Amino acid sequence: MSRLDSFIRRLEAQRACLDHAARLVAGLDGAVLELGLGNGRTYDHLRELFPGRDIYVCEKKVAAHPDCVPPPERLILGDMRETLPAAHARLGGRVALAHLDAGTGDAAANHALAAELMPLVAPLLCAGGILVSDPPFGHDELEPLPLADGVPLGRYHLYRRV
Amino acid sequence: MSRLDSFIRRLEAQRACLDHAARLVAGLDGAVLELGLGNGRTYDHLRELFPGRDIYVCEKKVAAHPDCVPPPERLILGDMRETLPAAHARLGGRVALAHLDAGTGDAAANHALAAELMPLVAPLLCAGGILVSDPPFGHDELEPLPLADGVPLGRYHLYRRV
Repeated sequence: MSRLDSFIRRLEAQRACLDHAARLVAGLDGAVLELGLGNGRTYDHLRELFPGRDIYVCEKKVAAHPDCVPPPERLILGDMRETLPAAHARLGGRVALAHLDAGTGDAAANHALAAELMPLVAPLLCAGGILVSDPPFGHDELEPLPLADGVPLGRYHLYRRV
Repeated sequence: MSRLDSFIRRLEAQRACLDHAARLVAGLDGAVLELGLGNGRTYDHLRELFPGRDIYVCEKKVAAHPDCVPPPERLILGDMRETLPAAHARLGGRVALAHLDAGTGDAAANHALAAELMPLVAPLLCAGGILVSDPPFGHDELEPLPLADGVPLGRYHLYRRV
């Protein structure tokens, strides 16, 4: 499998997991939290999936397509390791779906970032709230869920807050 | 359609066109020419499609994944507007398949680059040689071809040197 094949597969898995997660949280109240804006592609997808929800976005420095920049009142600017604890008062237990794509190509760095973020992200999820993530996580309060149909194992990950 | 949907569709179209072009040139002798290396994903795909052919790669400054850097003897370093005329002695009429992905997100800049490159690229193709490209081109010696089955129109483009 070429790197082009692999990249397409990962994006397809990401989209399938987000679409599946949207169905899983359909009956839950709560905000959406995008952990990293990047070029804004998945933020744009989340906007389509959740037209009626507030979508908060954490980002260190915005470098997205101008059409994909969230409104300032829902942009949480800065290092997530500092801004997520500060966002707890506003978002603690109020997030129905969070998404982390730490897919930088450096697997060790991705896992290290995820390990730092998980204790900060899990308490933001409401009971039954869903985390969509690459890389995978281990966390006491997060139960792994089966992936969407047709998504190859290990490409993307779904968790529910117990 | 979200930007994530659109991006996935473009990558799927790119791959389908490259795979289709590989079948079209199966009976032709000649090298492969990648016009821009980028992160090396399509170069890696071309390596899989053409294990027996020389694959030349033009790039201004290599910034690809280390696994996806071509050997120095087939890397044509510098601005393509200068290096392609210089490569004519070596590659003129000897390229069975060329690929240009100028998908920078700035459509006007992509078209301008393509317009500059086409008179330099067309003479490198052998008779019957295939150009796979985004953006589209107009050139006297390049005849547009139907896309691979299932590829949405206007996402990627195929030409044959007449």
